[in-house]
Amino acid sequence: MSSIDAILDQVDANLPASLDRFRRLLAFPSVSSLPEGAEAIAACADWLVEELNGLGLAARVMPTAGHPMVLATSPRRAGRPKVLFYGHYDVQPAEPLEAWDSPPFEPRIVEEDGLRRIYARGAADSKSQFWSVIEALRAWRDSAGELPVDVTVMLEGEEESGSASLSDFVTENRELLACDVAFNSDSDMWSPDRPAITTRLKGLVHEKVTINAPNGELHSGHFGNVAVNPVQVLTGILSAIHDDRGRVTIEGFYDGVDPIAPDLRAQWEALDLDEALSGVSVAGGPREEGPGGEKGPGVVELMWGRPGVDFNGISGGNTGPSERSVLPASAYARLTYRLVGRQRPEDIRAKFRKFIETRLPAGCQVEFEGAGGSTAVSVNEASPYIAAAARALNAEWPEPALIKGTGGAVPVVGLLTEQLGVDCITVGFILGDDAIHAPNERYDVERLHKGIRSWSRILSELAGSNAA
Amino acid sequence: MSSIDAILDQVDANLPASLDRFRRLLAFPSVSSLPEGAEAIAACADWLVEELNGLGLAARVMPTAGHPMVLATSPRRAGRPKVLFYGHYDVQPAEPLEAWDSPPFEPRIVEEDGLRRIYARGAADSKSQFWSVIEALRAWRDSAGELPVDVTVMLEGEEESGSASLSDFVTENRELLACDVAFNSDSDMWSPDRPAITTRLKGLVHEKVTINAPNGELHSGHFGNVAVNPVQVLTGILSAIHDDRGRVTIEGFYDGVDPIAPDLRAQWEALDLDEALSGVSVAGGPREEGPGGEKGPGVVELMWGRPGVDFNGISGGNTGPSERSVLPASAYARLTYRLVGRQRPEDIRAKFRKFIETRLPAGCQVEFEGAGGSTAVSVNEASPYIAAAARALNAEWPEPALIKGTGGAVPVVGLLTEQLGVDCITVGFILGDDAIHAPNERYDVERLHKGIRSWSRILSELAGSNAA
Repeated sequence: MSSIDAILDQVDANLPASLDRFRRLLAFPSVSSLPEGAEAIAACADWLVEELNGLGLAARVMPTAGHPMVLATSPRRAGRPKVLFYGHYDVQPAEPLEAWDSPPFEPRIVEEDGLRRIYARGAADSKSQFWSVIEALRAWRDSAGELPVDVTVMLEGEEESGSASLSDFVTENRELLACDVAFNSDSDMWSPDRPAITTRLKGLVHEKVTINAPNGELHSGHFGNVAVNPVQVLTGILSAIHDDRGRVTIEGFYDGVDPIAPDLRAQWEALDLDEALSGVSVAGGPREEGPGGEKGPGVVELMWGRPGVDFNGISGGNTGPSERSVLPASAYARLTYRLVGRQRPEDIRAKFRKFIETRLPAGCQVEFEGAGGSTAVSVNEASPYIAAAARALNAEWPEPALIKGTGGAVPVVGLLTEQLGVDCITVGFILGDDAIHAPNERYDVERLHKGIRSWSRILSELAGSNAA
Repeated sequence: MSSIDAILDQVDANLPASLDRFRRLLAFPSVSSLPEGAEAIAACADWLVEELNGLGLAARVMPTAGHPMVLATSPRRAGRPKVLFYGHYDVQPAEPLEAWDSPPFEPRIVEEDGLRRIYARGAADSKSQFWSVIEALRAWRDSAGELPVDVTVMLEGEEESGSASLSDFVTENRELLACDVAFNSDSDMWSPDRPAITTRLKGLVHEKVTINAPNGELHSGHFGNVAVNPVQVLTGILSAIHDDRGRVTIEGFYDGVDPIAPDLRAQWEALDLDEALSGVSVAGGPREEGPGGEKGPGVVELMWGRPGVDFNGISGGNTGPSERSVLPASAYARLTYRLVGRQRPEDIRAKFRKFIETRLPAGCQVEFEGAGGSTAVSVNEASPYIAAAARALNAEWPEPALIKGTGGAVPVVGLLTEQLGVDCITVGFILGDDAIHAPNERYDVERLHKGIRSWSRILSELAGSNAA
């Protein structure tokens, strides 16, 4: 077997070609939550199959009830660890398009701040993440002639629209997916110099609530202050969801939430907040008085250890460019709940809906949209595979890997853990200022490079772990 | 002089042609608050000048700093009352277009509920109103060979966008507009059988408030419950504007608001609420517990005698068709204040802005949009011209004219009263279910007909008042 240095040389030499392929991947507008994304999703899946076949894996598109899964397996050899790599090739919608400095599906490279930044929807979340794995597999094959472990690559096409088919797919294909350890690449670093292995993941519940008045739109001069106003009803109810300390007032919301152990809290409080926040301001947040978040817990505990609810959007009545004296007919809000511990999605959803219904004025009607969701997951931090991944990361980056949590939901982790009975280890290289889910999403060539090197080293460590 | 019966016969005979001309008027998309409306505004003004010239008036388009005014005067004859008629030919935006059953500027007549309904933006507010005056002038000229009084017709082109040029126009053209009495046709009836003369008009202040977070859009999984959320800030502040009895909590808001005299309140409380509301539900309003409006005062007092603030629109964050885990960068709301008594627009605006600013969390910024506004007006109810108008209306309609108030702002009334030193009498035939300012705005041919007859009778009574 080739030494890791030869593999890494191969990664370095391959970089321009790796980048070219990455840009082709980014050009697919594979938006999973909009009907117009379906064609690009299918085209992207076909392209990925071709790429993976080209690496000597047996790859195919596998249909689901929603968008297809891409699955690829390397030839099996007895006595080697079987490693499953998960990623997702779908992306968030790019709207509002006018907020982008260049078209979101025409990847543009800009030299700025000493980096070569790649601007595109999906540049960070999550195409760069699984593509780094694939380029690491390529470097191994090109340099060593074969992969050091048995590999399964599983790429999802509907992570950004709620992963509706994922659970059925994993359950129905347990045999095919069987492995010794799974890796989820859809994740972030702690700071530009410090990689991370994420072991605590929050659960997620999406809800949309619409309040309808008993009337259509009315002239607010005639019927204002008389007929019920759904914007007033909605803002009133939403404002009641948090108390003046930022705690959620929904009855029973904190059931199943355990306090953070003092030693863990101490570790979290020792972390550098500027690194945790990657340039994001929390003015108005828990470091000052204001409604930025729950008061009391520190920033890191809020991010990794406390549940909450966030208002993602609101709309009602006159949202046009000019004044209009109208009493709206309806108003809606979108919210996400982030769960920890033993909070269950269906329980939180029911409690929220009851909270709204009991506050609904006479004559109004409420509609809810939202289904499914995920529970929180904690990965066994004593796993030898975590140790292997940490050794690899520590060799590549200036600072040692941090074992951390995340507020972002990654339902696949809980699912693979539960269905395959293995540790699912989350390693990725997204940073807080990559503008994921937002206009002008970006990544940089330097991180793509070090990400490929990191996965090349992780493959080496996994092979070594087995040999040891 | 022709008897009024001959004039009314002429109105009846003219109706099909009157309706044809009305439909041509409705076809101009004369939206004053959007840049794309300017061309139609200009074309509509030209068309009106041609129509008024055709009636023997000297008509012209008079430019303003905004949209043009149409002014027309009949030949003057000594010893006759000079009567000014005000109307506005601009309309509200028609958005959201998809909520209309037919295109808003392609007037469509539908026979339903025993009526011939005309669907179009402006069908009620306010093209039908001044067009009824013009067709009454036509009937007088066609039947009697001349108008019974000296007439000035003044048609505004920016009433629906705040009447920014109106004050300057009236002030600068006081000589030209000099008259014995002014009529404002932009108004409503009490019920389908009962006309009304409106003597109490509320003032109006439009405001838009935008809350900006210190960050752009963020992933709500990573930064939710930590970074400040402008939707949460905005909903929190808006919900604090009303107390649990629906009263406005802004300090000093009710300064200059006098209680309603007991005898006037008794008259108002004796009115038929179903008629006042024209089919509009106030479930959730003051007839039941809920946030529909201020608790305590009756519905009519709220509509005509109490000030208030209404939320016209709200928007922020993800307003797209699908789920998106985003922490918004900003959120805005549009509000209108309705003033009574001695409340001043500039004072209310300043108090509102202070209310927001003192509640703004650290790190957030606020932007306000809004200027001008109008104070409330009360017309002298002992005016002999009110008596003349009431006699005319009582002769035409099944029930006698009601002397009433309105919550809709009609700044022109205060302006003409003040600048011309005359009574400005408000008579119109809009009904509560005409869907003004809303999709599927409508009027009916029967009301157009009786409106023209009413104005024909008012012209007769005004001529008679003078002779008496």
